[in-house]
Amino acid sequence: MTTTPSTPPVAVIVDTTRSTHAQLRPVPINAVTLEDTFWRPRREQNRKVVIPGQYKLCEDTGRIDNLRIAAGLKQGDFEGFFFNDSDVYKLLEAAAWQLAGVHDPELERMIDSVTEIMAAAQQSDGYLNSYFMGERAKDRFANFDLHEMYCAGHLFQAAVAYYRTTGKTNLLDVAVKLADHLCDYFGDEAKGKHFGTDGHPEVEMALVELYRVTGDKKYLDQAQYFVDVRGSGRLGNPFGFQKPVYHQDHLPFRQLTRLEGHAVRAVYLNCGAADIETETHEPALHTALEEMWQNMTQRQMYLHGGLGPRYENEGFGRDYELPNAHAHAETCASVANVMWNWRMLLMTADARFTDLLELTLYNSVLSGIALDGMTYFYQNPLSSDGDHHRQTWFRVACCPSNISRTVASLPGYVYSVSEGAIWTHLYVANAATLTLPDGKRVRVQQQTEYPWSGDVRLQVLDAFDGAINLRLPGWCEQGWTLSVNGQATKPELTEGGYLSLKRAWQAGDVIALSLPMPVQRIECNPIVAENAGRVALMRGPLLYCVESVDHDGADVRNLSLADSAEIKAAYHSDLLGGVTVLQAPAVIHTANQAWEHGLYRSRSSTVALAEKPITMTAIPYYAWANREPGTMQVWLDTH
Amino acid sequence: MTTTPSTPPVAVIVDTTRSTHAQLRPVPINAVTLEDTFWRPRREQNRKVVIPGQYKLCEDTGRIDNLRIAAGLKQGDFEGFFFNDSDVYKLLEAAAWQLAGVHDPELERMIDSVTEIMAAAQQSDGYLNSYFMGERAKDRFANFDLHEMYCAGHLFQAAVAYYRTTGKTNLLDVAVKLADHLCDYFGDEAKGKHFGTDGHPEVEMALVELYRVTGDKKYLDQAQYFVDVRGSGRLGNPFGFQKPVYHQDHLPFRQLTRLEGHAVRAVYLNCGAADIETETHEPALHTALEEMWQNMTQRQMYLHGGLGPRYENEGFGRDYELPNAHAHAETCASVANVMWNWRMLLMTADARFTDLLELTLYNSVLSGIALDGMTYFYQNPLSSDGDHHRQTWFRVACCPSNISRTVASLPGYVYSVSEGAIWTHLYVANAATLTLPDGKRVRVQQQTEYPWSGDVRLQVLDAFDGAINLRLPGWCEQGWTLSVNGQATKPELTEGGYLSLKRAWQAGDVIALSLPMPVQRIECNPIVAENAGRVALMRGPLLYCVESVDHDGADVRNLSLADSAEIKAAYHSDLLGGVTVLQAPAVIHTANQAWEHGLYRSRSSTVALAEKPITMTAIPYYAWANREPGTMQVWLDTH
Repeated sequence: MTTTPSTPPVAVIVDTTRSTHAQLRPVPINAVTLEDTFWRPRREQNRKVVIPGQYKLCEDTGRIDNLRIAAGLKQGDFEGFFFNDSDVYKLLEAAAWQLAGVHDPELERMIDSVTEIMAAAQQSDGYLNSYFMGERAKDRFANFDLHEMYCAGHLFQAAVAYYRTTGKTNLLDVAVKLADHLCDYFGDEAKGKHFGTDGHPEVEMALVELYRVTGDKKYLDQAQYFVDVRGSGRLGNPFGFQKPVYHQDHLPFRQLTRLEGHAVRAVYLNCGAADIETETHEPALHTALEEMWQNMTQRQMYLHGGLGPRYENEGFGRDYELPNAHAHAETCASVANVMWNWRMLLMTADARFTDLLELTLYNSVLSGIALDGMTYFYQNPLSSDGDHHRQTWFRVACCPSNISRTVASLPGYVYSVSEGAIWTHLYVANAATLTLPDGKRVRVQQQTEYPWSGDVRLQVLDAFDGAINLRLPGWCEQGWTLSVNGQATKPELTEGGYLSLKRAWQAGDVIALSLPMPVQRIECNPIVAENAGRVALMRGPLLYCVESVDHDGADVRNLSLADSAEIKAAYHSDLLGGVTVLQAPAVIHTANQAWEHGLYRSRSSTVALAEKPITMTAIPYYAWANREPGTMQVWLDTH
Repeated sequence: MTTTPSTPPVAVIVDTTRSTHAQLRPVPINAVTLEDTFWRPRREQNRKVVIPGQYKLCEDTGRIDNLRIAAGLKQGDFEGFFFNDSDVYKLLEAAAWQLAGVHDPELERMIDSVTEIMAAAQQSDGYLNSYFMGERAKDRFANFDLHEMYCAGHLFQAAVAYYRTTGKTNLLDVAVKLADHLCDYFGDEAKGKHFGTDGHPEVEMALVELYRVTGDKKYLDQAQYFVDVRGSGRLGNPFGFQKPVYHQDHLPFRQLTRLEGHAVRAVYLNCGAADIETETHEPALHTALEEMWQNMTQRQMYLHGGLGPRYENEGFGRDYELPNAHAHAETCASVANVMWNWRMLLMTADARFTDLLELTLYNSVLSGIALDGMTYFYQNPLSSDGDHHRQTWFRVACCPSNISRTVASLPGYVYSVSEGAIWTHLYVANAATLTLPDGKRVRVQQQTEYPWSGDVRLQVLDAFDGAINLRLPGWCEQGWTLSVNGQATKPELTEGGYLSLKRAWQAGDVIALSLPMPVQRIECNPIVAENAGRVALMRGPLLYCVESVDHDGADVRNLSLADSAEIKAAYHSDLLGGVTVLQAPAVIHTANQAWEHGLYRSRSSTVALAEKPITMTAIPYYAWANREPGTMQVWLDTH
């Protein structure tokens, strides 16, 4: 690292939740320094390449100018979509998280300069949205699908992030003024306030975070109000082509049992509700969240953690509707899935949420960005005819900054703490200083080549009495071993499935966890007809796929893998930034070429069967579409 | 028949095309009287139940009132979508075709009374559209996606139909005035006219028909103009969420090689272009049409003839993108497919177009309406979880009247003629009086139980020298026999694949054609992963499916049919209005129930395999969803 880590101000060690209901407490993002070769370079690339690149695109596309115009600093008309402010705010959030553990004056200057414009654009009553200025000022809060509170929410999250990593309050001041305005404006109509909630949830979780940072409970109450008023059908149908379910207005939240409508909206709403539940401990909220989680994982989720199969609503469809090639599976929905599972994990300490967080993070979030950090996927299909490519930017540019803020905040997902216990969720080489609820500081050091190897070495650098709880990944079915200072040990399992080691830890104690990573053939419920009789390959947390480029340009949708074929894994440092590839003998059904002239044929037709033996080379799904374009397939035919 | 057939006026025997380029000439709809038990009852139901029911719905939903308001006959505001006039016009067209061969004063009165309102609403310059009245009058022809010419086209088609079946000119007068207005308004900008064409093609084929009826070539030229100006990108993108390809403005027509965009729009445009080509014999139009037809049938068509897999554009997707459960496959697109193939057939006399016309008609058009004629499908999926039901009406109500006008005009699709030849396209019991181009009238009588049996008896009732060309359906692979007056005969094949019998026919000659109808197992190109390893069942022109209701409520998506299983066909007169069902021993994979708690599992997981033997009962696809709701499947798993 060439830059000097800043000394975190006191502010950042304020708990992210003050709730006594949560099983786990997050640790400040500054507490963990990544030292690995997988995530750390990505986070550095995020800081040096991706975020500056996105900032330039925000400038080039008028997104910053929209704010300047609103502030009277520039003449002109608002450009782009009504929600474009949010792209700027999400970028600020990403930049703010990057400031954890590193001094980057340029990034800080970027945040401060945009904050200055925002402060200048903010109205005297606290209102701030660059679209609803001038003649559109009269339309403020008139159409709940124009994302005003959604934009506000992203502003709040940026402000909280900047405060947490730097202690600076300039952006937080803007956020608080706008939040106060929302609290004044929306609420009980009997008290003269206005009915309303946003067509695109987001502000709910942001308000809870603002409550956590400021300690002002009105923000929590306001978040709860925004959840509670849903399901009345009163949001209306401003664009005429979507139903109330599209923006989660079809049922009161506590009656929801399945994920429906726009995927990002639905899961953002669940994040907000989970945050509220974390603070209020309301069982009805938990029941709805748990039922939706069950529905999602058992009926509506892609194997890479992606959500929302349909393009027409960017969202959920029927149970088992999971088309591979024409999957919407928006990158933002995967980010939302990570965020939701993180909140469920904090509430419950249940490892199934960590499993899903990890699965989604390593596969359908990471696939959203090219290895060079320059192009993005909006959709993340599981099969391709060769025409699905990442793009530099989108007219609706929600995904790029969503990846950036996730990668930027990654150190915060590695550990959490509880009374007398340290919890390890993600395996990634790092050095961390963890502060237990009683104030005791424990430094730990993690060494591992994860996700390529499941061998993890965790060294305790400060003595303490208590538990170290290690995640036993759901993908690890058997054969794992655990030792402390070289002595094999049989740990207890926590209720939520973590390996729990309790003792009086001495400085220098070493835990060694070994998680075997055999290649797994995954099957899908055959009601998903497209996947029936097929297998997908996973190793550790990573989903694999095959691409034409590794198979002499063959159409890999015709590849068939024998059930008996032995699949070998080998690390290739020179491929795709360093990846473990899977290789096995397989065949390409060249007989399928006989179909060239038709979609259908009577079975009595005579067709020469033929297959060509090949060596299958599968690469991690996240790394596809980084070389020569061609076909791609996740679910492989078998024989 | 309780009503008296009207004597057709002279007008109706005017050729529908005067072109010397077309291989075939249609026969007037009045020339053919259906006498069968499959289509005739449906056409009678159409006249007595369906059309009056749709008229009532047009009244109830303000569609007729919109015209009354435009005519100043009523006070009020326009109700519904801007294209709602078209639903009325399509209903008039359906009613008009029904007047062929039957006297129905009520239906005629309905047409005349609506015509009277339309005439009163028509502006002095000929303009007519009930949406663009009052303050919206200033917006006429300003936004090419507001269907003004689309509505006009349907008006022209209704007028042509009414003129052809009754000789009455009241509706035609309105049509001509409006068409003249379009011709005056749109055209060469250098000549002071306006650039434009409709976002929703339809007017092109209607103008060609108007040319055929009136003999005025300016309508043909205008149709050609509307095709020629496409592909400039000048139509714009009025709603912001669809690209030029959505309304076929991405490429000049003659450069098109695949079907793209909104399915109904694309295929209606092809109908118009085919009509123009029929009159102008332009090779470049034919090449584009042929390439698109090849692309459609080899890459983009459902087995039931349905088109347009995607909901988000109601249209085409990538090649091989053919999801079964979430298929859009709009009924209107199937109607369009019938119309397009009819036009290609007339141009070429090629039986492959007749095959596709028949396939689409019997399967994905007919599935669009319930057996009782009271409810409709907008989408026609090939698999269902039990929640896809026909509806009484739609906010966008294009499909009901499209089915009605197809069923009403069916007698016109049975035969055509050419110099010295009679062509038989559809097998259906009927009596017909066919007039050859030289004026010679030949009466024929067809007897058959088609589509349940492939035995056809065609009796010639008037002596004539020439050919009788009989379609040899593409589904009939082998074993067919043909005799004349009991003598087996080996006919020549026409270039387009029709069985051709040339002789000096005597009154009373009997042709007997026997087309065996074994059950066929159809396979799909495995690039459509969902269908790989599966079969669909067809018998004759009919596609079959399985429904829960015939299998003790089992989820028939888990049904598996052995490749070796013998499938028996038997006619059940008491089932679904009389259908031939297919039965075979099969199994339901009850092991799939072990998936109840998950979407994915590692293959190493132990799962008890189990299957339950059952008797599979497959019914014609068109008849599904007419009983107790449940799962439905077309593509069956095999073992």
